[in-house]
Amino acid sequence: MSGNTFGNLFAVTNFGESHGPAIGCVIDGCPPGMDLSEADIQADLDRRRPGTSRHVTQRNEPDAVEILSGVYQGKTTGTPICLLIRNTDQRSKDYGNILETFRPGHADYSYLHKYGLRDPRGGGRSSARLTAPTVAAGAVAKKWLLAKFGTTFRGCMTQVGDEVIPFESWEHVPNNPFFAPVADVSKLEAYMDALRKAGDSCGARIRVTASNVPVGLGEPLYDKLDADIAFAMMGINAVKGVEIGAGFASVTQRGTTHGDSLSPEGFQSNNAGGVLGGISTGQDLEVSIAIKPTSSIITPRQSIDTSGRPAEVVTKGRHDPCVGIRATPIAEALLALVVMEHALRQRAQNADVQVSTPDIMRTRA
Amino acid sequence: MSGNTFGNLFAVTNFGESHGPAIGCVIDGCPPGMDLSEADIQADLDRRRPGTSRHVTQRNEPDAVEILSGVYQGKTTGTPICLLIRNTDQRSKDYGNILETFRPGHADYSYLHKYGLRDPRGGGRSSARLTAPTVAAGAVAKKWLLAKFGTTFRGCMTQVGDEVIPFESWEHVPNNPFFAPVADVSKLEAYMDALRKAGDSCGARIRVTASNVPVGLGEPLYDKLDADIAFAMMGINAVKGVEIGAGFASVTQRGTTHGDSLSPEGFQSNNAGGVLGGISTGQDLEVSIAIKPTSSIITPRQSIDTSGRPAEVVTKGRHDPCVGIRATPIAEALLALVVMEHALRQRAQNADVQVSTPDIMRTRA
Amino acid sequence: MSGNTFGNLFAVTNFGESHGPAIGCVIDGCPPGMDLSEADIQADLDRRRPGTSRHVTQRNEPDAVEILSGVYQGKTTGTPICLLIRNTDQRSKDYGNILETFRPGHADYSYLHKYGLRDPRGGGRSSARLTAPTVAAGAVAKKWLLAKFGTTFRGCMTQVGDEVIPFESWEHVPNNPFFAPVADVSKLEAYMDALRKAGDSCGARIRVTASNVPVGLGEPLYDKLDADIAFAMMGINAVKGVEIGAGFASVTQRGTTHGDSLSPEGFQSNNAGGVLGGISTGQDLEVSIAIKPTSSIITPRQSIDTSGRPAEVVTKGRHDPCVGIRATPIAEALLALVVMEHALRQRAQNADVQVSTPDIMRTRA
Amino acid sequence: MSGNTFGNLFAVTNFGESHGPAIGCVIDGCPPGMDLSEADIQADLDRRRPGTSRHVTQRNEPDAVEILSGVYQGKTTGTPICLLIRNTDQRSKDYGNILETFRPGHADYSYLHKYGLRDPRGGGRSSARLTAPTVAAGAVAKKWLLAKFGTTFRGCMTQVGDEVIPFESWEHVPNNPFFAPVADVSKLEAYMDALRKAGDSCGARIRVTASNVPVGLGEPLYDKLDADIAFAMMGINAVKGVEIGAGFASVTQRGTTHGDSLSPEGFQSNNAGGVLGGISTGQDLEVSIAIKPTSSIITPRQSIDTSGRPAEVVTKGRHDPCVGIRATPIAEALLALVVMEHALRQRAQNADVQVSTPDIMRTRA
Repeated sequence: MSGNTFGNLFAVTNFGESHGPAIGCVIDGCPPGMDLSEADIQADLDRRRPGTSRHVTQRNEPDAVEILSGVYQGKTTGTPICLLIRNTDQRSKDYGNILETFRPGHADYSYLHKYGLRDPRGGGRSSARLTAPTVAAGAVAKKWLLAKFGTTFRGCMTQVGDEVIPFESWEHVPNNPFFAPVADVSKLEAYMDALRKAGDSCGARIRVTASNVPVGLGEPLYDKLDADIAFAMMGINAVKGVEIGAGFASVTQRGTTHGDSLSPEGFQSNNAGGVLGGISTGQDLEVSIAIKPTSSIITPRQSIDTSGRPAEVVTKGRHDPCVGIRATPIAEALLALVVMEHALRQRAQNADVQVSTPDIMRTRA
Repeated sequence: MSGNTFGNLFAVTNFGESHGPAIGCVIDGCPPGMDLSEADIQADLDRRRPGTSRHVTQRNEPDAVEILSGVYQGKTTGTPICLLIRNTDQRSKDYGNILETFRPGHADYSYLHKYGLRDPRGGGRSSARLTAPTVAAGAVAKKWLLAKFGTTFRGCMTQVGDEVIPFESWEHVPNNPFFAPVADVSKLEAYMDALRKAGDSCGARIRVTASNVPVGLGEPLYDKLDADIAFAMMGINAVKGVEIGAGFASVTQRGTTHGDSLSPEGFQSNNAGGVLGGISTGQDLEVSIAIKPTSSIITPRQSIDTSGRPAEVVTKGRHDPCVGIRATPIAEALLALVVMEHALRQRAQNADVQVSTPDIMRTRA
Repeated sequence: MSGNTFGNLFAVTNFGESHGPAIGCVIDGCPPGMDLSEADIQADLDRRRPGTSRHVTQRNEPDAVEILSGVYQGKTTGTPICLLIRNTDQRSKDYGNILETFRPGHADYSYLHKYGLRDPRGGGRSSARLTAPTVAAGAVAKKWLLAKFGTTFRGCMTQVGDEVIPFESWEHVPNNPFFAPVADVSKLEAYMDALRKAGDSCGARIRVTASNVPVGLGEPLYDKLDADIAFAMMGINAVKGVEIGAGFASVTQRGTTHGDSLSPEGFQSNNAGGVLGGISTGQDLEVSIAIKPTSSIITPRQSIDTSGRPAEVVTKGRHDPCVGIRATPIAEALLALVVMEHALRQRAQNADVQVSTPDIMRTRA
Repeated sequence: MSGNTFGNLFAVTNFGESHGPAIGCVIDGCPPGMDLSEADIQADLDRRRPGTSRHVTQRNEPDAVEILSGVYQGKTTGTPICLLIRNTDQRSKDYGNILETFRPGHADYSYLHKYGLRDPRGGGRSSARLTAPTVAAGAVAKKWLLAKFGTTFRGCMTQVGDEVIPFESWEHVPNNPFFAPVADVSKLEAYMDALRKAGDSCGARIRVTASNVPVGLGEPLYDKLDADIAFAMMGINAVKGVEIGAGFASVTQRGTTHGDSLSPEGFQSNNAGGVLGGISTGQDLEVSIAIKPTSSIITPRQSIDTSGRPAEVVTKGRHDPCVGIRATPIAEALLALVVMEHALRQRAQNADVQVSTPDIMRTRA
């Protein structure tokens, strides 16, 4: 429980710093007998990887993952899977006076006060780079859930700064650097180019969903499925808001419209976002998150130094002008980790976990 | 980790059902030597209690708490504190056909699919009544945090259905049944009366804050302070959205405005909501939540029965037309539990936890 | 993790003090749909209960258990089961000067130094009375394991003080107050009578076993099945030693004799005690524990008072001259809790947990 | 909680297999600001390392540790410390038919039944080689405890097979390969040489102690200090018995002798082994463990193959004829991990943890 482990039955312990020798994680609790190779994990890492377009940080990291344990002859053994990602492009010289000052909106301030010291190189442990091991672990969870229940995870950007992005089709998402569900992203590119020119950064909104989720996942009090989703999402760097289903729109909804009607064919709407009373209903999980603008910007900001004296801060170095651009695979991974954890937990209680429920009153094992 | 325990170092295990003999909780980890009596806890329970205005359920429960253990001669002993609240007004006959049908938007459906059986009396374990033990535990945490760090918790309603409630003053909050920070609640009362007449329910938005929070609370990855707050808030019955600081407004903010500037006098704004990089800064924690409309309404809804056949559902019985009205003390309690947990955790790492930090580079114990 | 919860998936949170209003526990994680009533639990409580023979404390407690939650219409619902046992015979006046002094061998000293205060009435939380809720929870686990896998738990006393008790038959165990597997306990009764007359106390050795244990329980590193058994047993009041299988005798065994040979009919011996590499083999679990003599005796002892000055201590009141006499049902209960926890955990990893394994290389789910 | 993590506040997650690319651990919860380098850890690893005498396995592993994270400019940062040890001498060809058969007394059988597959190379995850990361983590805990409280840990062998080893002095321990507290180990060497010639293996008994342990460590129910010690010790490969203080000798002790008298100068004896009521008293922790003979021996044994047919098993390869010989530093490390965990936990409850207690009734923070 010391803070760097996600999950209990599928427990992912994350380690490393942005500019240390390596980052990685240990996955404890992956069921045995699943085919697993580096290639299964690399695909998602490549989706999150920096340097793939002009709209993200130009740090060049291959993010090549190495499986150090837990796999024998291509199959998981049921023992801990250590995934290692070497850092290769650590350029620390660019950081200017940030060791002595606090960047507005950055974890500099809180880290120094918590620990009494900090690793300033690339943000150290607070860097968004540390989402890479999470994405790697999520890929393992996704593979197991797909094989076992047919569960799939998808995400897309729905807004970047002032630009609301209409949903056209999931098929567009892999074809642009924004994970935008639209065919033409020229408007988004123009927006980002103007922002970069202005030396500023912007926020974003991301949607992430899961389909074919087993019914009955989540503990009703306190470890609800939606509570764990909120925990996972708010824990992503820069996230400031989380919604499930109708989210904040439910404030102005009436009970007669919010409650999703049922027919013999199933639910007629999904204001619940796939969760009722903290437990999955089998409908798609629907999650939306708000991401704040990057705090590391080249526009000068007013701040103080570590002695409390006024100081002007300018962040050089390589930064994402909108961290939301690379957030989609991260949010997918975390949703997968939450579903994985609860799927295993539900199996502990009821060996017979299923996706669909034709026979509602079925006998329990 | 079986789902009904909140926290690790200040661990609250919740038990009971709406219409069973009793509800309650066991608090494990309360530091020894603190004065504690039932009266300390009853005050917050009374704020949450049903039947106190015509705008909430008319169930009449005194919610009288009994301390069964962990206190000797008026002081906490450091051993588990069991708090028991007897249920006294269980009227189950009003529930009509709900045992055989699923109420749209209600946990009926997911409970039956998870467990294969369910306690239908008053919603059983899914009832909002189970927030009472949480409120009781929160009162204990609040008392310790106030004595130790001067930390205080406050909440208010900021919107009910379509009625946005402007912030006038904290002093109005205790003087009306809505926890509204306004002197005149006649508009809100009229809104609620019309809603009840229409046989419908509505959502709400609640704000909750903490002041004098020690700096350095929260683990940067994954057990961030804001992640745990999101977990706690989304776990409250009917909550569908959580924001920290600027929340969803940060999507359209620029980095130049979102990042809170620092001066020798402190932060100049609080878009962060008191958390940077998952760690408290010492600023006020600022949280906002969205609460969906109650699912139990008397307007007929289209649904199915447990055999999957179409059925019309009408919920009789005593229900809150807006569960948000009683949510403020619940949200405060959960925020207190999160801060308490992290305060103890931070003490484990650094015996010298403090609220303010005049000497930033102070030597560590 | 604050210390008073046993287990994670079948989590038992214990509360109460010897002379407070009540003791009890909350069981979180019991699978739904199992028949459960107070009578199922009372039987084991009655085996542990004080006052049943002249060889144990004369405190008169019915130890009547009340189920406060988690059971609806006679079946477990999958939600927390709160078990309450009211204290009825609290006679605190007998304790003499023990509030100001430390009894040699007693938890007085460590409690006061840990907490800065303590509840002296009957030992407060350190009383062996707090094993009653554990026994109650164990009864629930036993019932589920018996129904699911046919697992059974048995225990007996194998030595009391200097009297080694030969094993004759399990059938004698319920017929005498010592849980001794012999037909004639007159020698043991004479031994205890002499001890009581001498104003002294003695130790004991208890054996506890489980049969029809599923294979594959236990995590190989660090949460081994035998490690968890050792944790559970050493945690019983007054236990100072734990052995699995051959135990300390394995120090002088050779590899050629210790390692249990296998034949197509199964293992040829059980030096392993049913655990290899931390994982159950399906053989009987075999555990032996050493219990120290009671520290509360009427013979005067040399000690100090809470100011550090020399003081003579005499413990009046009602005490077991050999706490080992009532330890058998306690040890059984804890073994059941360990097996239950690991059975659920193994189900999370492998839905197809079984007792016997005719087809060793069976396909995994 | 998936099994491979030791501790909660000082959480050590262990990964790797005997013949995989690497083994290691992640330490989460080490307080910030402590000087730490590989050299601090290597010393203990070298004490445990194979190939250092003719009495242990001849596998040649430098066990060189690399710190991958959590240390910046020679100081711990408070974030996870990943320790990596590359495997360099993996010779798997020697294992004969062990993939198809079960070695008596070996984890082969239980692993295959638990997981449905296993890594046979060098015992895979069940190898005693996996104690190396534990020893490394223990070295970090030892360093912090020494600096903070002056706590020290020592261990020695007290019996090997039939040879009881008298205690002469701690100073002899580092001067012989047995960790024996005697000047002349020629008798032990002769015993081991004869055993090896006979193609057999033997057990051992190890004693481990801690001095200057803070008072007040341990939670009285269930997470007692002695319960956690028993868990830690029984979890070491091949351990079959654990004693605290007088251990099994307390069975025949009387209360008048077992209970350690107190005088103004302190306790007069240590039958308690430093723990009363599950809480440390400040006296030395005294622990003794029984280690079974190695199961991998060259003498042919009767067994079955994975299809259940009779098979003769002979284990070739490089094995310790007495795994107890290298167990001393392992037991020390685990004792250090237990004390570390409880020291941090106690700090959470009471910021003012101390070793000695001149003023017993001191006011609490």
